[in-house]
Amino acid sequence: MTSPIPAGFRLGGFHCGLKRNPNKEDLSLIVCDEDTVAAGVYTTNLVVAAPVVWDRERTPSDKIRAVITNSGNANACTGEQGVKDNAEMASIVAKMAGVSADQVLTMSTGIIGHHLPMEKIRAGLDEVFQRLGTDESHFDAAARGIMTTDKGKKIASRECEVNGKTVKLIGMCKGAGMIAPNMATMLSVVLTDAELTPDQAKSLLTSVTNDTFNCITVDGHRSTNDTLLLLASGKAGTGKVEGAALDSLRSELRQLCEDLAKQIPADGEGSTHLIEINIEGCASREDAARIAKTVADSALVKTAITGGDPNWGRIVSAAGYSGVSFDPMGMQLIVNGHLLYQQGTPVKFDEKTVSQSIKDSFETDITLRFTEGDTKFRYWSSDLTVEYVRFNSEYRT
Amino acid sequence: MTSPIPAGFRLGGFHCGLKRNPNKEDLSLIVCDEDTVAAGVYTTNLVVAAPVVWDRERTPSDKIRAVITNSGNANACTGEQGVKDNAEMASIVAKMAGVSADQVLTMSTGIIGHHLPMEKIRAGLDEVFQRLGTDESHFDAAARGIMTTDKGKKIASRECEVNGKTVKLIGMCKGAGMIAPNMATMLSVVLTDAELTPDQAKSLLTSVTNDTFNCITVDGHRSTNDTLLLLASGKAGTGKVEGAALDSLRSELRQLCEDLAKQIPADGEGSTHLIEINIEGCASREDAARIAKTVADSALVKTAITGGDPNWGRIVSAAGYSGVSFDPMGMQLIVNGHLLYQQGTPVKFDEKTVSQSIKDSFETDITLRFTEGDTKFRYWSSDLTVEYVRFNSEYRT
Repeated sequence: MTSPIPAGFRLGGFHCGLKRNPNKEDLSLIVCDEDTVAAGVYTTNLVVAAPVVWDRERTPSDKIRAVITNSGNANACTGEQGVKDNAEMASIVAKMAGVSADQVLTMSTGIIGHHLPMEKIRAGLDEVFQRLGTDESHFDAAARGIMTTDKGKKIASRECEVNGKTVKLIGMCKGAGMIAPNMATMLSVVLTDAELTPDQAKSLLTSVTNDTFNCITVDGHRSTNDTLLLLASGKAGTGKVEGAALDSLRSELRQLCEDLAKQIPADGEGSTHLIEINIEGCASREDAARIAKTVADSALVKTAITGGDPNWGRIVSAAGYSGVSFDPMGMQLIVNGHLLYQQGTPVKFDEKTVSQSIKDSFETDITLRFTEGDTKFRYWSSDLTVEYVRFNSEYRT
Repeated sequence: MTSPIPAGFRLGGFHCGLKRNPNKEDLSLIVCDEDTVAAGVYTTNLVVAAPVVWDRERTPSDKIRAVITNSGNANACTGEQGVKDNAEMASIVAKMAGVSADQVLTMSTGIIGHHLPMEKIRAGLDEVFQRLGTDESHFDAAARGIMTTDKGKKIASRECEVNGKTVKLIGMCKGAGMIAPNMATMLSVVLTDAELTPDQAKSLLTSVTNDTFNCITVDGHRSTNDTLLLLASGKAGTGKVEGAALDSLRSELRQLCEDLAKQIPADGEGSTHLIEINIEGCASREDAARIAKTVADSALVKTAITGGDPNWGRIVSAAGYSGVSFDPMGMQLIVNGHLLYQQGTPVKFDEKTVSQSIKDSFETDITLRFTEGDTKFRYWSSDLTVEYVRFNSEYRT
């Protein structure tokens, strides 16, 4: 069996002491064999962490040589010192890899507002560099090294034919809380051996993000650090990727990102259900997305699902305050395939059956149909549990 | 001691069986001695309950004779039958009071999507009509009759001089969950004996609502039923109220509505803290309100307060994703009088002292200062507790 890791990358993870548990990696390093194409999309939060500022200035690029990520500390709201610490992290990696600091991208995730413990990081970078490799075990260590409150590593991979060559795509992501659309506390790196220009990489990322990583929510809180990077080594020997070949690659990348993105609300802090919200029949994508997001973020919808309660009133009223104009009499609500509401009035349904269908399955499907047009939109959310609250009211103190 | 109840109104409450507990009133009736000025502000939800549609069409008015409210059932999403039931409720009251149905306003609150049990209501209306009176005990019964998950009745009263006469204002409100700005699951009636025109009543209500009832959130979920009514009997003998006298009355009404409004998040489902959010130094009221609302609705901010955790990173990052443009380096955060953050970097503070100040007090003050202008805005929120989630995931099934 061949490795799912695209050629051109070496990876590794290491525990340097940012996390308390010595068995949990808190550094993740990706080193590229040669200058590599890289593009990124970043948080829309106005308060951004030092690594986001750093990466934004250096992508898209065709000269990237490494991505260093630490978890356990977001290096956000850390002022000038945070900027210096981030630059030092990049410089150390650059020195070890024999490249310039500008060729190193950085990511950080974890608690906000604490300075990075640079002594631990300096020692750790030395170690993680020694541990680089090209096996799945190396990829897994790197994927664990970006985790914070995630229950497990989040990875996905795909293969496809491009210009007669086999192209590999593999991605890792993290995120369990502070997740909202427009790049939440979410870090992700996707590696491929396809040949892309920096502009192509950027455009591919942007186009797939809107249907994937921007369609998830856990708690509606947009973070300071969200970053999604795509690195393309070109080692698959595809030559230039254009036209239908590019479309096909985009489609694979979209599926990969959807696989990764869904893992985030599925592992939402304390969550017991992954909620898929399907909005149909809207006049525009904006309308559909707005309704989906409003339903997805409603604490009352989330807690109803937690309790296995087909409380369609909460869902219908959430759609109603989304700010989108629609004909309430034309709205239909279907939960797990059961019609619960239409024409402004409740439909007779077997409450026990629907409740059981929610309780029995980890995934709950909420479909809202409108009569304003034919635009569809999909969105994923977590439910809201006692454990979420317990966890987040005991996080730090 | 004179009664705080303005002249011109008789009130009562009764348990007719919409609520399970026979000691809890679920009908609330206000009958006016003569044709009375009334104005209302209503939910902005597109999915609105039958009583909201009814009242919107009949206010402002100078001919109102009664307000009938039921709790335990919102008569929302109940289609044509709901419209009929609501009209019947108004008709029965009208017949008993010897007026026309168009002179009766209605309000409903409780579960969405169930038809009103009209037999119980018909019998109950007969009873509540017999129990009308002008004492505080009657007012209290009416105030309890609009409650749902509220822990206790929410009332406030004031007196002021208008044109040399003593004017009384008294209000009741309810709301504990599904509370968000722009009139949440919130019902409120304010009675006064001042003399107002319908237009004055409407304009007074609208102007004070923006600083009071529209500045509260419990769970960010805007309801289908929110209604705030102002009834002015004119019995105080003020004559026309204009100019400075009107300003003074507005100021009293604003204070009364603030007193009422704050009681809602203070009694938010499961809440252990009332959070007051003060936004200062914004370029516009819209900006300040948007930042306030974003902080107020953040599950991570709420849970931090629940845990007594001065986790300013969550507050600062919530401001950052509000969508308002500001200079992050100019932002200051003060919690309970302690400066926690400024110039893009954490300030040294005694975490234990600040944590203890949150734990020791029911009210937590979060002040965010900006350098974009001099507009201020205040907002109130509940914290988010395990009990909120428990309660809302066990609400119905």
